[in-house]
Amino acid sequence: MSAPVYTRVALIGLGLIASSMFWAMKRGGLAGEVTGFAKSGASRETARRIGLCDRVCDSVAEAVADADLVVLCVPVGAMGAVAKEIAPHLKVGATVTDVGSVKRDVIDTVGPHLPEGVHFVPAHPLAGTEHSGPESGFAELFDNRWCLLVPVEDSDPDAVAKLRALWEGMGANVDEMDADHHDLVLAVTSHTPHLIAYTMVGVADDLRRVTDSEVIKYSAAGFRDFTRIAASDPTMWRDVFLTNKDATLEILGRFTEELFALQRAIRTGDGEHLHEYFTRTREIRRGIIEAGQDTAAPNFGREAPKA
Amino acid sequence: MSAPVYTRVALIGLGLIASSMFWAMKRGGLAGEVTGFAKSGASRETARRIGLCDRVCDSVAEAVADADLVVLCVPVGAMGAVAKEIAPHLKVGATVTDVGSVKRDVIDTVGPHLPEGVHFVPAHPLAGTEHSGPESGFAELFDNRWCLLVPVEDSDPDAVAKLRALWEGMGANVDEMDADHHDLVLAVTSHTPHLIAYTMVGVADDLRRVTDSEVIKYSAAGFRDFTRIAASDPTMWRDVFLTNKDATLEILGRFTEELFALQRAIRTGDGEHLHEYFTRTREIRRGIIEAGQDTAAPNFGREAPKA
Ligand SMILES: NC(=O)c1ccc[n+]([C@@H]2O[C@H](COP(=O)([O-])OP(=O)(O)OC[C@H]3O[C@@H](n4cnc5c(N)ncnc54)[C@H](OP(=O)(O)O)[C@@H]3O)[C@@H](O)[C@H]2O)c1
Ligand SMILES: NC(=O)c1ccc[n+]([C@@H]2O[C@H](COP(=O)([O-])OP(=O)(O)OC[C@H]3O[C@@H](n4cnc5c(N)ncnc54)[C@H](OP(=O)(O)O)[C@@H]3O)[C@@H](O)[C@H]2O)c1
Repeated sequence: MSAPVYTRVALIGLGLIASSMFWAMKRGGLAGEVTGFAKSGASRETARRIGLCDRVCDSVAEAVADADLVVLCVPVGAMGAVAKEIAPHLKVGATVTDVGSVKRDVIDTVGPHLPEGVHFVPAHPLAGTEHSGPESGFAELFDNRWCLLVPVEDSDPDAVAKLRALWEGMGANVDEMDADHHDLVLAVTSHTPHLIAYTMVGVADDLRRVTDSEVIKYSAAGFRDFTRIAASDPTMWRDVFLTNKDATLEILGRFTEELFALQRAIRTGDGEHLHEYFTRTREIRRGIIEAGQDTAAPNFGREAPKA
Repeated sequence: MSAPVYTRVALIGLGLIASSMFWAMKRGGLAGEVTGFAKSGASRETARRIGLCDRVCDSVAEAVADADLVVLCVPVGAMGAVAKEIAPHLKVGATVTDVGSVKRDVIDTVGPHLPEGVHFVPAHPLAGTEHSGPESGFAELFDNRWCLLVPVEDSDPDAVAKLRALWEGMGANVDEMDADHHDLVLAVTSHTPHLIAYTMVGVADDLRRVTDSEVIKYSAAGFRDFTRIAASDPTMWRDVFLTNKDATLEILGRFTEELFALQRAIRTGDGEHLHEYFTRTREIRRGIIEAGQDTAAPNFGREAPKA
């Protein structure tokens, strides 16, 4: 095992992403000591019980004191307040990063709080599950997934390189990207799909009262996939939409436009338009499988014939 | 092994559903001899090569001659023409069934062609994958999934009971349902979700030209789930929307209404509305897992830590 990338790492927030980072850092021997802090006593207790973090602290100040890397793993809407709270306790030369799903807003709310001599390198791992909390993490979450680094204007190149080494050590591929572009790409690949899934599940939930439990019973024909996404943490997603408002609304506008065109094709019986549209969308799936970003197994392999 | 449910079964169309039925019938010893027919010589050749069906026939007439059960496994839009073609060759006392995803339209287009003395029992197994064709089937597809029988007014109770026994033998749970109710429930649990997924993937495909291959590369944050559904067979889905027009348009209307309300909440910064909505939709996922219709494993288990 090579030398750790950082001597001391502090994880602020102990949910899915932080706990996966902890197990991935341990797997790779990437950090000397890892401290952790979560808002609630309950989460801190859970963390202690399951051995999440080398040391769970009862205050952020204690957690970040002397840390070489501080990782903000809280909902996007809480980032600014947390940054303000930790600022006075940061070591000179430390790097602050985050894992938030939106980048422009985090840069705008966190950046101004950080003192001189502290490096700021925003980041976003494109990996997750529908589960949350300290017990939901696992070391493999980032394997072969992308982590986007979004350096700010005066991000120190050495600090960026070190953070890249950490993410690569945790199994991720690393790219750098500009904040606004990040927010647009993510609006397409993540934020709008989530909003749509939430909406569809909401509609079905309304109808459930009409159709008894049929919506649940007969969900295997497509709907159940949407319910996985729509089971994600409400606070995290509320914050994503409130802080990536413009890009989400733009992509939603395009979505509605296309949906109306398909709706019109259904109403007028324009089978050709439908067939052509449904053919075009197949290719993108092939691209994703070839890029190693999903399994080719039918139904994601969840119903694979038992051996 | 108990006695077969049917002495001779004919599968018309040899795609995902027909091939899965064949392997499931073999597994359960449910049919004496199974004949099969597909439109193209290529599919028939493939079927012969992989041992799909005891006998692959080069005409529908030959395939259905002397069959006790004829299963129409073609796209919904082709059902009427196929029914007309087989009608003169059906044995008195035979049962004709189908597996189409829409039921009112199939009943209206198939029913009138069937001669006196032939039983008609429409059906729809709520199980599938994004793959199609003769090589995509597997015996376990229907295990613990639902199959809906949609008997018509004069469906013979014995014929219905026999078909139920076949589906139960293939691993399915069986329910009976009225055709219009079926089409509405499926518009919620399958048809509208598919249309929405196709739309979202189409939007991303447009943007792909702007964002290079980023939409593919960074798809793991939610989008890739949509691409699986949107990789389904274009002909099958074109037919579904054209033949279940009213129910699909009704559910789409509700969907758009809810989406606009969420869009407004994003625009006005109404975090409470968003949080409340996203909380409500979690419960339905729990119901689906408890009902055994999906796995509780994160990301459908496709990234489960390797043992
Ligand atoms: N989930 C995903 O798929 C995913 C993927 C990529 C990036 N992200 C981003 O990663 C971040 C964390 O997400 P997650 O999924 O790990 O969330 P999570 O499992 O819900 O955990 C969030 C953690 O943040 C803590 N927290 C909340 N407000 C806090 C505050 N004011 N001060 C200190 N701690 C606070 C919570 O503490 P308590 O437990 O005490 O409430 C909890 O430990 C978010 O910014 C999200 O956008 C998520
Ligand atoms: N896929 C699902 O998830 C699913 C689930 C439940 C129900 N269904 C329903 O099941 C039916 C079949 O779907 P599938 O997924 O099995 O389709 P598939 O894999 O695409 O196969 C369709 C088969 O129908 C044949 N066919 C098409 N037109 C025909 C015609 N005029 N005469 C004879 N054969 C013809 C095709 O022959 P060639 O191979 O020669 O073209 C092919 O063998 C559809 O009605 C669909 O709505 C599908």
